[in-house]
Amino acid sequence: MSSLTGNAVVAQSGGPTAVINASACGVIEAALELRGLITAVYGANRGILGILHEDLFDLGAEPPEQIALLRATPAAAIGSCRFKLGPLDTHRDNYERLLKVFDAHDIRYFFYIGGNDSMDTADKVHRLAQAQGYPLRVIGIAKTIDNDLLGTDHCPGYGSAVKHLAACVMEAGRDLEAMSTFDQVVITEAMGRDTGWIAAATGLAQRHPDEAPHLIYVPEITFSRSKFLDDVRTVYRRLGYCYVVVSEGVKDETGQYLAADDEVDQFGHRQLGGAGRYLSRLVKSELGLKARYNRLDTCQRNAIHFASKTDSDEAYQSGREAVRQAAVGVSGKMVNLNRLSNDPYHCEPGLVDLAVVANGVRPLPREWLDAAGTGINQGLRTYVAPLLRGETPIRIGPDGLPLFSRFIRRAVPRRLPPLATGFGTK
Amino acid sequence: MSSLTGNAVVAQSGGPTAVINASACGVIEAALELRGLITAVYGANRGILGILHEDLFDLGAEPPEQIALLRATPAAAIGSCRFKLGPLDTHRDNYERLLKVFDAHDIRYFFYIGGNDSMDTADKVHRLAQAQGYPLRVIGIAKTIDNDLLGTDHCPGYGSAVKHLAACVMEAGRDLEAMSTFDQVVITEAMGRDTGWIAAATGLAQRHPDEAPHLIYVPEITFSRSKFLDDVRTVYRRLGYCYVVVSEGVKDETGQYLAADDEVDQFGHRQLGGAGRYLSRLVKSELGLKARYNRLDTCQRNAIHFASKTDSDEAYQSGREAVRQAAVGVSGKMVNLNRLSNDPYHCEPGLVDLAVVANGVRPLPREWLDAAGTGINQGLRTYVAPLLRGETPIRIGPDGLPLFSRFIRRAVPRRLPPLATGFGTK
Repeated sequence: MSSLTGNAVVAQSGGPTAVINASACGVIEAALELRGLITAVYGANRGILGILHEDLFDLGAEPPEQIALLRATPAAAIGSCRFKLGPLDTHRDNYERLLKVFDAHDIRYFFYIGGNDSMDTADKVHRLAQAQGYPLRVIGIAKTIDNDLLGTDHCPGYGSAVKHLAACVMEAGRDLEAMSTFDQVVITEAMGRDTGWIAAATGLAQRHPDEAPHLIYVPEITFSRSKFLDDVRTVYRRLGYCYVVVSEGVKDETGQYLAADDEVDQFGHRQLGGAGRYLSRLVKSELGLKARYNRLDTCQRNAIHFASKTDSDEAYQSGREAVRQAAVGVSGKMVNLNRLSNDPYHCEPGLVDLAVVANGVRPLPREWLDAAGTGINQGLRTYVAPLLRGETPIRIGPDGLPLFSRFIRRAVPRRLPPLATGFGTK
Repeated sequence: MSSLTGNAVVAQSGGPTAVINASACGVIEAALELRGLITAVYGANRGILGILHEDLFDLGAEPPEQIALLRATPAAAIGSCRFKLGPLDTHRDNYERLLKVFDAHDIRYFFYIGGNDSMDTADKVHRLAQAQGYPLRVIGIAKTIDNDLLGTDHCPGYGSAVKHLAACVMEAGRDLEAMSTFDQVVITEAMGRDTGWIAAATGLAQRHPDEAPHLIYVPEITFSRSKFLDDVRTVYRRLGYCYVVVSEGVKDETGQYLAADDEVDQFGHRQLGGAGRYLSRLVKSELGLKARYNRLDTCQRNAIHFASKTDSDEAYQSGREAVRQAAVGVSGKMVNLNRLSNDPYHCEPGLVDLAVVANGVRPLPREWLDAAGTGINQGLRTYVAPLLRGETPIRIGPDGLPLFSRFIRRAVPRRLPPLATGFGTK
């Protein structure tokens, strides 16, 4: 492969995780080590929008200790967004704008950390650059707490989200057990629009059949209100209390979400969140039991205070691997994770075509749930447990609270006329 | 003081915390060390209900390592309840039943870990025993995440609840900042029925005025919908996003909760929870901004996975101190915490009359909020910060999740005819 000299841009996309910044840290540190090849490393403010708007900042100007502290900082320090560029044939101008910005800033390396939508964008940029003969190396780095990307054993972000949420279920489960003369049912609403990977994995919290969670509902299985009420009644009769975990994306026999707000985002995704509250009210009205719910919402995807070290380290290594592969000429690929052995756990980064990952969804395997579909079996435990191991070290201030990284964000001077204001802000 | 030989009973009451078991551990370990004085140490299954129903188990039969592990176990391992015995003059039979059970089991020491309702019960038991000439030493140990007990600098349980919730606000705040082209407003609903101690203390998460939380609403200040909307609009115009923390117990100009479920518990307390959801909908409908909310509910009072070591150690010491004081003849007192200096932080346990604590509530001082009443000042920071310091060590299993203590619960044989079934189960 020919060596390609120029600048690099790194962008983060979609819903943040506890470890997306660890991936960014891997990219930035590895890219800055290759000064002979990669002349400057830029961050794109607010994901792909930052590139479209030529809103870039110089990551080389950031103090190295703030870059290192990314591994202990949740959310998306470079900035993120949800913005879809549209199909290449109908929205070619968007993609051409990206290449125009790349060209204006001598960008030859594009590292994009995100989910399947982002891998689709990266794939299109890669293909357009090839078609136009623009020398560009595009590498994706997987990110999603949902763990539903194709072409990888698992996704950075998943292990940390599960570790925190499962611990919360254990803790709130002990609360319910202690308070069962007062509270009878608790429902945890887990993230997961299309798949039950997160909800199901909270099943690891249950080390004994009497412990929480007693019932888990995932989007892969059609939800039945009458079966749900039967399930809760049965557990309640046996124990005197019942702990339920439900995926926000569960749908009933008519294909409807159990509860949905009115809004639909740009991707056609409904803004979910309401299943826990809905079911707690159903339990009250139909079974006459006292029911409460918890809904961690974005707290569940950013919990660096109890994040998995395995997950964080893999996120960081994925970032470094992206740079290493791009430097030797690879493009149009996403860094994936390959589990070589489970005991002891050993996992190596590899490569998969962006096109394989783009827009696909990997459902939770039915065979990892029990016969009733409301509990998990050893298959899922064996798969998930290694991903939760270890605690990510964080920095704590004299006030007992975490200390996060914050960038200076030294702007890269613009070289192109601006896009219309308001573009992409909604 | 004369030395008093006999058995001890320890009970936990009310909503659990991350460290109420640390207090139980202190009581149990200290009591078991005094075998010459305290012959046996019993746990009351489900708080005061366990005593009424003569449902006791022998804590001396528990493995010492499971007792020690209480310091890393959330909720209430002995069992808890919400059950009010009623006024002494009208419900004297309840109190006499307690003394009858005590007498049947040679109970001479009663350690009650709970909030103001529990201290009221303990006080009545203490007074009735005195009036009847029954030799009994009654000591309360403070417990509440709400931090609203009179007669103490602060309450075990508070520091840990704040440490976890403030970290969650920092984390979800970074998420909002990164996603501000997509999400504009996030609302965290904090526990706190009568006081804003928890909600206000999440203000420590804000190390810079642009960081979350930007606005805090506490029950001590009457809530105005129009002022709230103005506040959010102002922050949104300045930053492009706005993070709000609201106490569940906030009330409007008419004295109504912002949103309340229909149920009222036995204490006349409404079951709260709904303020966050309500305000997120208000922001959407009135300001047209995208708003989401999180509601940790019981997850926020049990988060041993990021609990304060200062808090946990004080909870444990309070338990030990209760036994030490009872052994030398004290009764009718609660162990309190006295801050001797703040820099360095130094705090010593002391004693306060149960009657001082019983049923009173200590509001958040207005002078620790800013002029607008929606932010905190240095006074609150100085008060809270030491309470959050250090992380409670926990045990983690090979699956990356916490390992909690679990009791054998070897029953103490009953010696009295049973109460009517169903008594106290609601």
